[in-house]
Amino acid sequence: MSRVLTVGAAQLGPIALNESRKVVVERLVSLLEQAARHGCDLVVYPELALTTFFPRWYFEDQAQVDAFFERQMPGPDTQPLFDTARKLGVGFCLGYAELTQEDGRARHFNTSILVDQAGEIVGKYRKVHLPGHAEHEPWRAFQHLEKRYFETGNLGFPVFRAFGGVIGIAICNDRRWSETYRVMGLQGVEMVLIGYNTPVHNPPAPEHDNLSNFHNELVMQAGAYQNGTWVVGVAKAGHEEGVDQIGNSIIVAPSGEIVGACSTLGDELAIARCDLDLTQSYKNTVFNFAMHREPHAYGLIVERKGAIVTV
Amino acid sequence: MSRVLTVGAAQLGPIALNESRKVVVERLVSLLEQAARHGCDLVVYPELALTTFFPRWYFEDQAQVDAFFERQMPGPDTQPLFDTARKLGVGFCLGYAELTQEDGRARHFNTSILVDQAGEIVGKYRKVHLPGHAEHEPWRAFQHLEKRYFETGNLGFPVFRAFGGVIGIAICNDRRWSETYRVMGLQGVEMVLIGYNTPVHNPPAPEHDNLSNFHNELVMQAGAYQNGTWVVGVAKAGHEEGVDQIGNSIIVAPSGEIVGACSTLGDELAIARCDLDLTQSYKNTVFNFAMHREPHAYGLIVERKGAIVTV
Repeated sequence: MSRVLTVGAAQLGPIALNESRKVVVERLVSLLEQAARHGCDLVVYPELALTTFFPRWYFEDQAQVDAFFERQMPGPDTQPLFDTARKLGVGFCLGYAELTQEDGRARHFNTSILVDQAGEIVGKYRKVHLPGHAEHEPWRAFQHLEKRYFETGNLGFPVFRAFGGVIGIAICNDRRWSETYRVMGLQGVEMVLIGYNTPVHNPPAPEHDNLSNFHNELVMQAGAYQNGTWVVGVAKAGHEEGVDQIGNSIIVAPSGEIVGACSTLGDELAIARCDLDLTQSYKNTVFNFAMHREPHAYGLIVERKGAIVTV
Repeated sequence: MSRVLTVGAAQLGPIALNESRKVVVERLVSLLEQAARHGCDLVVYPELALTTFFPRWYFEDQAQVDAFFERQMPGPDTQPLFDTARKLGVGFCLGYAELTQEDGRARHFNTSILVDQAGEIVGKYRKVHLPGHAEHEPWRAFQHLEKRYFETGNLGFPVFRAFGGVIGIAICNDRRWSETYRVMGLQGVEMVLIGYNTPVHNPPAPEHDNLSNFHNELVMQAGAYQNGTWVVGVAKAGHEEGVDQIGNSIIVAPSGEIVGACSTLGDELAIARCDLDLTQSYKNTVFNFAMHREPHAYGLIVERKGAIVTV
């Protein structure tokens, strides 16, 4: 018995600053309908998929920032996506900016939800690894103010029983950190869903802009292989408000091999039939954690945040 | 000011069961001389570089096992290698089976040492991630009894100030585990030296034998990039006592790019000029650990050894 989950990586092209959520959701629905025609069970959208990537600007006025956030999910603009999911029997993973009241105060998270084939939210993740910077840095060609506009996620790296398997979620910069995959791997994750907005140009280190796609693939391929899990990485791509973002959306097998990929920088669906049982060949052998991991030697990973040279 | 360390990855072809240490050391010396002619500062040899890969056999008699171990380093057979290093001013990293008296008993480790350009031992590492199995499993085409013949290394993942930089050592299966690189990355490692003996065929999971080289490259490239460090991976390669071992010795830049490689399965030297300052472009930006790591979310990595599914 195989456990095949057919997944669509629903890459988005650019979203303009003045593009309404209603229009964006129409694009999401269109991709969902396309996926349904191809027999997909699950569609994965990018990070912050409802608006332009707003952390590229410095806003003095918090109200301007908050305008990019969702106060309810589903809300009036996103309800059609949930309705379509239920109607078509196709689940989805969606990234958005979440504004919520918790502990008696307004809290801002970079969030992604997992919605099942009945249109119900069955999982939520809030981004842990916020990249970029917290203060306005005018020397940059564009800002990356995630550390200013979001709080660090407070849900850890949870996994969810859904779509016949164990599903995890990560967001953008999370994918560069081996700890992200490992914490989910230790919970038996079989597929990790990752949306991202990744500028080609990194102002602090322009000398490796030419390696953006290589690094994107490398970290997700390694994370997949080293934990025996599928990984689905999906971009918001293309030239958005003056900034080039990578595409390179890929579906990675537990072997680390890329088995599905987008080749444009626009709205595009890549499809793969993902047999969740292919994870076993790794989880039970070379990456049988119970047999081969040595946690006694890993202490520094949690005891130390930054690198310290003592020799 | 650059800090260029010129490294030779000294791959070895097969070593026969009946090949004496004296003959093997002559091969090592020959590679060291070759490296000196090309201006290398440091030569990296494989894991267990002095004998055939003996864990492929089950031995009833411990004396037979112990015959593959070194009781002193340098010893009579290996002294010429140290002498040549001092004479030529080329350091080396050498893997060998170490039999030592510690805590009042005989202890067996899979060990690698770092020797400087004066021929002095300046670092020692004992393999933490022992692969394979502890009991005789006759169904296998060949054994992989590292868990039987060695103890788990008891030195952690140390780094050493040597060759103008911060140098770490790992051995074979260690390279598949992201924790290996991260624990050294948290100590500011700039170059990780890794020898290995990797059979092409993995009896418990033959379905991915064809991916052996791909996986070898993937884990070292990811470990390099994700910690902003050079990685030098060196094989004992070729058809050894009936078992095919991968070659694929590579030198990986902090970008994750392969900048040097062997292309045969025999004794072969790959060379690269490794600027240790290239690590800074990563350590100070996307992998600035102090700025971007989130250890509060990594607890499971040390709290849990095996995967546990609770959803």
